[in-house]
Amino acid sequence: MTTQTERIDVTARMSKIVRHANTVYLCGQTAKGADAHDIAQQTREVLERVDALLIKAGSNRSRILSALVHLRNISDFAAMNEVWESWLPAGDAPARTTVQAHLASKELRVEITIVAAVV
Amino acid sequence: MTTQTERIDVTARMSKIVRHANTVYLCGQTAKGADAHDIAQQTREVLERVDALLIKAGSNRSRILSALVHLRNISDFAAMNEVWESWLPAGDAPARTTVQAHLASKELRVEITIVAAVV
Amino acid sequence: MTTQTERIDVTARMSKIVRHANTVYLCGQTAKGADAHDIAQQTREVLERVDALLIKAGSNRSRILSALVHLRNISDFAAMNEVWESWLPAGDAPARTTVQAHLASKELRVEITIVAAVV
Repeated sequence: MTTQTERIDVTARMSKIVRHANTVYLCGQTAKGADAHDIAQQTREVLERVDALLIKAGSNRSRILSALVHLRNISDFAAMNEVWESWLPAGDAPARTTVQAHLASKELRVEITIVAAVV
Repeated sequence: MTTQTERIDVTARMSKIVRHANTVYLCGQTAKGADAHDIAQQTREVLERVDALLIKAGSNRSRILSALVHLRNISDFAAMNEVWESWLPAGDAPARTTVQAHLASKELRVEITIVAAVV
Repeated sequence: MTTQTERIDVTARMSKIVRHANTVYLCGQTAKGADAHDIAQQTREVLERVDALLIKAGSNRSRILSALVHLRNISDFAAMNEVWESWLPAGDAPARTTVQAHLASKELRVEITIVAAVV
């Protein structure tokens, strides 16, 4: 039996949301117009985007399964964590991995890739 | 109840394909004999390998859920995207994350890690 | 119908274990007190931690679906592989991707992120 796959906000390059078998995959989220923004502001904007996509996907921030966090500078770890921890609902933190990597454009300081459960 | 896991092309280090619960995990794909190849050629070869593995896994390129793309040089972003976008079936793009990272050997310019749905 | 999600060892930042729909997500595992440890010793310690978490999650090292390995120095590839291969049960290797990345603190040489099946 085939499980249905649903794609939302699809371009030639990627879908912002892919749903399959009660699991939601989001494309890596970054901040827009990020060049003037510090890590705290970029992290807040990324998490606002994640919120909007999860709602659209029939999920929400309390249902995240895993997060892969890429930081341009690992020295931004503490400042990113502060925003991240205040955003997460108590008791609902996902599994997480955080490493350093240059991102698609040089002004980007953080990219977060989310896998979540459908509510 | 236990869900069956199937492994295909297994070595002591990794399986090229792992199937579990209607989801397929591929090991990160790179080009072979890559030292003489530019990013476009390496991307094409990686995607040919992905095609072959997905067919073997009972899936195909229209059923990809997520892709994690590692580029040795993020400056190869546009050239990789051109090959990637022409390869994807219209309307079936996966969620995707692309970051820069050195890969297992220095001639490798791109590695792509795929999670897909079983057809 | 909602599929239950279970979180184990939860902090404000992350859960060490998240279970959903017969799949287990572990947070990225690193060695503790790692500054005096070489790559072989760090890899062994990481895999001991993975073992303990998988057991706690109702899984084990023969049920790993995918592994994402980040090495601070890709030159540690062979030494990490030697420990990795001797740890894996024959025939049960997961899909795997290995790339270079700086990790959360500078003494860390390897971080491994695991997705596994529930037994």
